[in-house]
Amino acid sequence: MKKILILAVALISSLAATAQQALWGSAPVVSPEINPDKTVTFRLKAPDAVKVQVTGDFLPTQKIKTPYGDFDGPGVADLVKNDGVWEFTTPSPLAPELYSYTFIVDGVKMTDPSNVFQLRDVASVTNVFLIDGDYADYFKIKDVPHGTVSKVWYHSPSLGMERRLSVYTPAGYEKGDNRYPVFYLLHGMGGDENAWLELGRAAQILDNMIAEGKVEPMIVVMTNGNADLQAAPGESSLGFAPPTIQLPKTMEGSFETHFPEVVEFIDSNYRTIPSKQNRAIAGLSMGGFHSLHISKEYPDMFDYVGLFSAAIMPDRKVKSPIYDNMEGKLKTQFDKKPALYWIAIGDKDFLYEANKEYRKKLDENGYKYTYRESPDGHIWKNWRIYLTEFIPQLFKK
Amino acid sequence: MKKILILAVALISSLAATAQQALWGSAPVVSPEINPDKTVTFRLKAPDAVKVQVTGDFLPTQKIKTPYGDFDGPGVADLVKNDGVWEFTTPSPLAPELYSYTFIVDGVKMTDPSNVFQLRDVASVTNVFLIDGDYADYFKIKDVPHGTVSKVWYHSPSLGMERRLSVYTPAGYEKGDNRYPVFYLLHGMGGDENAWLELGRAAQILDNMIAEGKVEPMIVVMTNGNADLQAAPGESSLGFAPPTIQLPKTMEGSFETHFPEVVEFIDSNYRTIPSKQNRAIAGLSMGGFHSLHISKEYPDMFDYVGLFSAAIMPDRKVKSPIYDNMEGKLKTQFDKKPALYWIAIGDKDFLYEANKEYRKKLDENGYKYTYRESPDGHIWKNWRIYLTEFIPQLFKK
Repeated sequence: MKKILILAVALISSLAATAQQALWGSAPVVSPEINPDKTVTFRLKAPDAVKVQVTGDFLPTQKIKTPYGDFDGPGVADLVKNDGVWEFTTPSPLAPELYSYTFIVDGVKMTDPSNVFQLRDVASVTNVFLIDGDYADYFKIKDVPHGTVSKVWYHSPSLGMERRLSVYTPAGYEKGDNRYPVFYLLHGMGGDENAWLELGRAAQILDNMIAEGKVEPMIVVMTNGNADLQAAPGESSLGFAPPTIQLPKTMEGSFETHFPEVVEFIDSNYRTIPSKQNRAIAGLSMGGFHSLHISKEYPDMFDYVGLFSAAIMPDRKVKSPIYDNMEGKLKTQFDKKPALYWIAIGDKDFLYEANKEYRKKLDENGYKYTYRESPDGHIWKNWRIYLTEFIPQLFKK
Repeated sequence: MKKILILAVALISSLAATAQQALWGSAPVVSPEINPDKTVTFRLKAPDAVKVQVTGDFLPTQKIKTPYGDFDGPGVADLVKNDGVWEFTTPSPLAPELYSYTFIVDGVKMTDPSNVFQLRDVASVTNVFLIDGDYADYFKIKDVPHGTVSKVWYHSPSLGMERRLSVYTPAGYEKGDNRYPVFYLLHGMGGDENAWLELGRAAQILDNMIAEGKVEPMIVVMTNGNADLQAAPGESSLGFAPPTIQLPKTMEGSFETHFPEVVEFIDSNYRTIPSKQNRAIAGLSMGGFHSLHISKEYPDMFDYVGLFSAAIMPDRKVKSPIYDNMEGKLKTQFDKKPALYWIAIGDKDFLYEANKEYRKKLDENGYKYTYRESPDGHIWKNWRIYLTEFIPQLFKK
């Protein structure tokens, strides 16, 4: 037995030069530990540290001052040191949710070395953990039939480049010859074609809701909405270039104008039902803006439209033919009576007023839409919830 | 302009509660910086830290003492503090390679907060950077046609579970109706169906070598060789359970015995050429062990076999029908004259002697194989190189 252990250790520890660190570098601590009462304990072994804190979206928000104004930021809690191990337990149970956090050790932000599960959001990497229950159960990988998730490259003539997108095909797609409706699901500024899969848990939500019979089997296409990029950071010919916070071609018409190329690619490479009645488009923040403009620019393309905390910006001065004649195009779109025009936003979202103005305009014209207002602000919690609420309404006619 | 900037910042910074950390939490430092002369500078802003080090496979190895013996571990270098920013520049240029590293801040291992590009290897997360040139150019994402990478679930009757595998289909697969040969590429102990894609850069290597005309377009299938697992850590119904170092069903026959189920799944779901002449199998370490046993157990399945630093263990006492009658099965396999039986290992690999013994046995029986000995030990550097050398030899008959 000991010999087998040595061999196993040797095999594993030599897999990477740094793997030994995990095995031998420090006595292991469990972190985070989700306790039976749904409180969560965070631990870090750091005997020489002077101050250790944890920050994350499970803590009450606090105002963060910036040169551009105050923003709601994550709260911070102090860990207490005992025998070299720092520890903090949440004072009360946490509600079901996918949470993210990092440590701050002597002023330096760092991920939790005991937790290999991390997500990148724009230029930040955080650890994640899941408290299950309620809608967060849809975020879990359950023993249900699983769809396939593919990273696929398509050629965009108008953008002049190969570009990557993510495609979810429902369980059973590979076998058989069924054709499926298609849902185009768009990310926000700073996101990419991975965002809905990683931060949004889209594949898990689809798998679980399809398995429950609440959602029609469908293909879900997640594009990259940054028209000057081929793909997510680290996945394009830019190599390991740091993510850029401000991208030049995000909301100036190029992405929206090229979108029929995406639909054409999907329709000719997947077994779709290529009709308006079998296409949906939705997006969060910038992706909501994109969905609004794409769906009105191509009024015969999508019968289902979802604006999740949409970045509606009436006063923008950006010029593109796609933003011209907004009122006329909206009239054309709504004269054709979309099967669903769904607007959702949090009551603390900084885009709340802009969305209210937009709804007012729709109301004035008698355009029919469904409105969903949730608590909280411009956060992934809301967008995951919106996804679970939007997809059961699709393709049911 | 300022208004647009504020809006952009608001959009981005509210995407996640912690995104502000990256924007406002600390003055940015660039790390790692690959200098024009191919030296590399690492930086960390940590005004309150007492000691900051960097450790990684770009540094000369050092012996690490463990309860189970000494192992070669990564070297460590001290960063020097200047105005709150710690810095270290390699004394000489680095050779082309995909390198990994982490910081050690006052004794705590942490990833580099300036570098969002990370890889998990077993239970360790490290940052990565790429020095291009030579074979490492194949690791880059170039402007060539890209294959599709899919995460697919299949049912294993013998293991009694849904399991996940990764499939690379070459550029152009979706269009047209060509059929392709299939290469089954297996990982090592502690790895999973993501390992060859993430640590092994398999998709990039395939894309680039196919584009150069050096490699036949082929489907590459990357399984999970841990027979008690559905999928990689965080990707199965175990949820965010920490990766287990020692897995119960890794080299005891279950995985090898179930392998025809994988081949059957691939042949019935992809446009393969379902013949021995159009199938290859190779793996690293434990995956080399698997490839050895699977290819001899099913001698009509694979015409091309690759053992990369194979975990050949003649003295194992593990019982499984698949390990019985090794000599007779090898004779059957080699009597059928495989198109290629390729054995590769580093001259410092702890499995060097075991491989030498195995080759001796093949020699004694006059079994034909190709041998490749490289410098270095049991590390990904070798396995990536072996992959670039193995695939040009496949399906060329």
